[in-house]
Amino acid sequence: APVSLWIDDDEIELRPATGLWGGTVPETEKRLREELGGDELVQIACIGPAGERLNKMACITAGHYREFGRGGCGSVMGSKNLKAIVIEGDSSFKIPESKDYPSLFEEVYTKLTGKDMMKYHDIGTPINMAVLNELMMLPIRNLQRTTDQGMAGISGEKFADDVLLRNGACAGCPVGCIHIGFVRERFQKEHRYIYRQVSYDHEPIFAVGAMLSVENPFEVLAIIDISEKMGLDVMSAGVALAWATEATEKRIISKSETVVPLSFGDSEGYKQAMLNLGMGTNEFYRILAQGTLKAAEHYGGQDYACVLGQEMAGYATGEVYFASQALGFRHSHLDSGGYSYDQKETSKDVAKAVDSLIKDEQDRVLLTSMVACLFARGVYTDELLASCLKVVGYDYLAGNLESVSLNIQGLRWKNRFATGFAPEKLSIPKRFYEITTAKGPLDGAFLDTLKTEYCKAIRGFDPDTRKSEDQAS
Amino acid sequence: APVSLWIDDDEIELRPATGLWGGTVPETEKRLREELGGDELVQIACIGPAGERLNKMACITAGHYREFGRGGCGSVMGSKNLKAIVIEGDSSFKIPESKDYPSLFEEVYTKLTGKDMMKYHDIGTPINMAVLNELMMLPIRNLQRTTDQGMAGISGEKFADDVLLRNGACAGCPVGCIHIGFVRERFQKEHRYIYRQVSYDHEPIFAVGAMLSVENPFEVLAIIDISEKMGLDVMSAGVALAWATEATEKRIISKSETVVPLSFGDSEGYKQAMLNLGMGTNEFYRILAQGTLKAAEHYGGQDYACVLGQEMAGYATGEVYFASQALGFRHSHLDSGGYSYDQKETSKDVAKAVDSLIKDEQDRVLLTSMVACLFARGVYTDELLASCLKVVGYDYLAGNLESVSLNIQGLRWKNRFATGFAPEKLSIPKRFYEITTAKGPLDGAFLDTLKTEYCKAIRGFDPDTRKSEDQAS
Repeated sequence: APVSLWIDDDEIELRPATGLWGGTVPETEKRLREELGGDELVQIACIGPAGERLNKMACITAGHYREFGRGGCGSVMGSKNLKAIVIEGDSSFKIPESKDYPSLFEEVYTKLTGKDMMKYHDIGTPINMAVLNELMMLPIRNLQRTTDQGMAGISGEKFADDVLLRNGACAGCPVGCIHIGFVRERFQKEHRYIYRQVSYDHEPIFAVGAMLSVENPFEVLAIIDISEKMGLDVMSAGVALAWATEATEKRIISKSETVVPLSFGDSEGYKQAMLNLGMGTNEFYRILAQGTLKAAEHYGGQDYACVLGQEMAGYATGEVYFASQALGFRHSHLDSGGYSYDQKETSKDVAKAVDSLIKDEQDRVLLTSMVACLFARGVYTDELLASCLKVVGYDYLAGNLESVSLNIQGLRWKNRFATGFAPEKLSIPKRFYEITTAKGPLDGAFLDTLKTEYCKAIRGFDPDTRKSEDQAS
Repeated sequence: APVSLWIDDDEIELRPATGLWGGTVPETEKRLREELGGDELVQIACIGPAGERLNKMACITAGHYREFGRGGCGSVMGSKNLKAIVIEGDSSFKIPESKDYPSLFEEVYTKLTGKDMMKYHDIGTPINMAVLNELMMLPIRNLQRTTDQGMAGISGEKFADDVLLRNGACAGCPVGCIHIGFVRERFQKEHRYIYRQVSYDHEPIFAVGAMLSVENPFEVLAIIDISEKMGLDVMSAGVALAWATEATEKRIISKSETVVPLSFGDSEGYKQAMLNLGMGTNEFYRILAQGTLKAAEHYGGQDYACVLGQEMAGYATGEVYFASQALGFRHSHLDSGGYSYDQKETSKDVAKAVDSLIKDEQDRVLLTSMVACLFARGVYTDELLASCLKVVGYDYLAGNLESVSLNIQGLRWKNRFATGFAPEKLSIPKRFYEITTAKGPLDGAFLDTLKTEYCKAIRGFDPDTRKSEDQAS
């Protein structure tokens, strides 16, 4: 029977959750909060109907506006009949007594609120929508285009001007990049509305805006809202619906599969389709819930399934990014700096690109392991990070950042291969070879060589060798 | 020292309210609710900065979204240093045990939710904006026009489609005509907003939309919001700013008086001006706070001061309405059926028009005395009203509706004359003579005769004579 898991400082308890099963994410949170009687410090992580149905795109929603998505972790909770995790922490951390702490805090604070981060304060991550569109690097209309005038309608600036209501922040962050807009839904012929607050970011806007050619920010938010109610990873779900739309255009599937008509730009159909995908209402949506690639294997249309291991992220920057997403870790586009390398480097030096991916990963795994914000990676230089660790008493870590991060990196790959990951077998769908970016038409030969060499590099990754290399250099 | 008045079933108490003095209406309500600890059944009536400053346009705000405006009652509270009245009722009424009550209730309910009332359920009172504009009967740009294409931007339908969030209702009403939209206000260069819910109706939209030529619903709501924070009657305040704008155009006043530039259609200026009017920031705004006519006496521009006793309501229907508003009771345009007579009757029969005003008033004073909704006057026929009164035990009232209402009507006029009202002395400003409506150019001679005859009719009003007339007919 369904359960919820309650954790506080002293005990862990499983409680029956039969009454919660079947509820959407907001309903589940609301009922749990009622049970709690208004204790706002409680944190809730839960799944929606998608996770209950073992949808491979199901996410875990934590803190209402944030999804632990990508990779289907919501279905892991679903498979265990675990609807929600409620954490009631009531301890506090003591601030170190040394004078170094306040001065270091101020240094980090000043750098965090400096010029570079404030674009996330102002417009938020969707600041990238207009930039990528301008650069011909935004995946649009199931990656049939990389730039489109219509995308001006869903730029970050447009969202901030038209739909933004308020901002949020992860605990204590002065940047506050979480942008929350509002959605109205008419539920009667006479003008009666319900309204909800919905958070937005670059990736959701890419996935159900750009990829579906929906050009109105309120409509984009409305589709995101349904995805989040269902507990779906909106990136995977949006890309899946983009594939389904092109498959409809190419008459591989029809309304007998999709139930509602799917057509680029038609947000009404997408709202219904998102609901169907979350609820798994027919065989088609249940197959699509296994992933776009699975659906393409079943119905055809693999060439334009925009899947790089999992459904693509919102960056069509070029060969290095595609190779790294296809073979690398893919929790987020931020897991590897490939998207950034493409934008900065025009040479086609394979060795240099692969080396950059491997080295860049080293910094990112360290920050990720510390639950630090990757947007702030420019602030947390090795030196500053070491000072921060030292001031809270982690002297060993502070003195051995490089070997610690290489060890993490090594363990990641080792574990991945041990659990069956075979990068040699992966192929990149044809669509990715067809695009044109700011760098010109995609270079297929370069992409293929990168794939081969990156594959070798991660297969042969050895922390100890790299350590001696670093010491030698 | 400032006080608040607390009333519950058993006691009445004056409490110090020094800390509340100076607060806007929403601030005052919020602090009182905090003091109450969340008892939602409490009702609060309070004044804002305008009432404290004895602004003649100050209203009393009750239940956050409803203003007891027109006539400056807010300044009466202000003059007594009374910031708020808090009513904590906790008794209930017993429903009569007879079977007639439920069946009568159902009859009233069915009629109330019938076709005629549902326009107020759907679009609300602003349903009239488009109708009046179509008919050339909407006062626009300080009554320089009675129709204007731009008004399509602030029709009731446009508000319902674009800004409506939710609906409210007076206690127990199934129609729910209260329409509440939302306003966002950017308070930082970076996109940071505060947002509030603001109710809207025909008259506020007329006053700060049509009269000021502001054609965007979000901007109209933002100006209403400031008026309500200040505790100003938005109708009086809007018409006053419309006069000030025309006076600016005609160079009677300048920026040295208005501080902010006033220009038709420029909502930014109007937001600042509304704040200045509420706060009485300089001599000009303090004089304007005595009423538009007072300001026109001081600065000139009487011809286009749109004042009929008090600042006009949102109906430019013609001669009968203008005569009745100028001389009659003016709490609301609904206090007399003149606006409706103009729309139905094209003849220029003075006796017929005056008789209609007097007779129509008879029905309205009865409903008003019962705190019934005047929108529902078509539902509450004399027969149905008598049945309603009977079923709750008011047999005498039920059997004597006509003489009771004539008595109320007689007492109203008697009291008004006794307290100094001299209708003979009132003149109607030139602007009202200059308009064209669906009935053609305004007929000045007809208006003047109506004024003379209506004056005679109310001066000579005698309930006893009318009773015998009614019995004779």
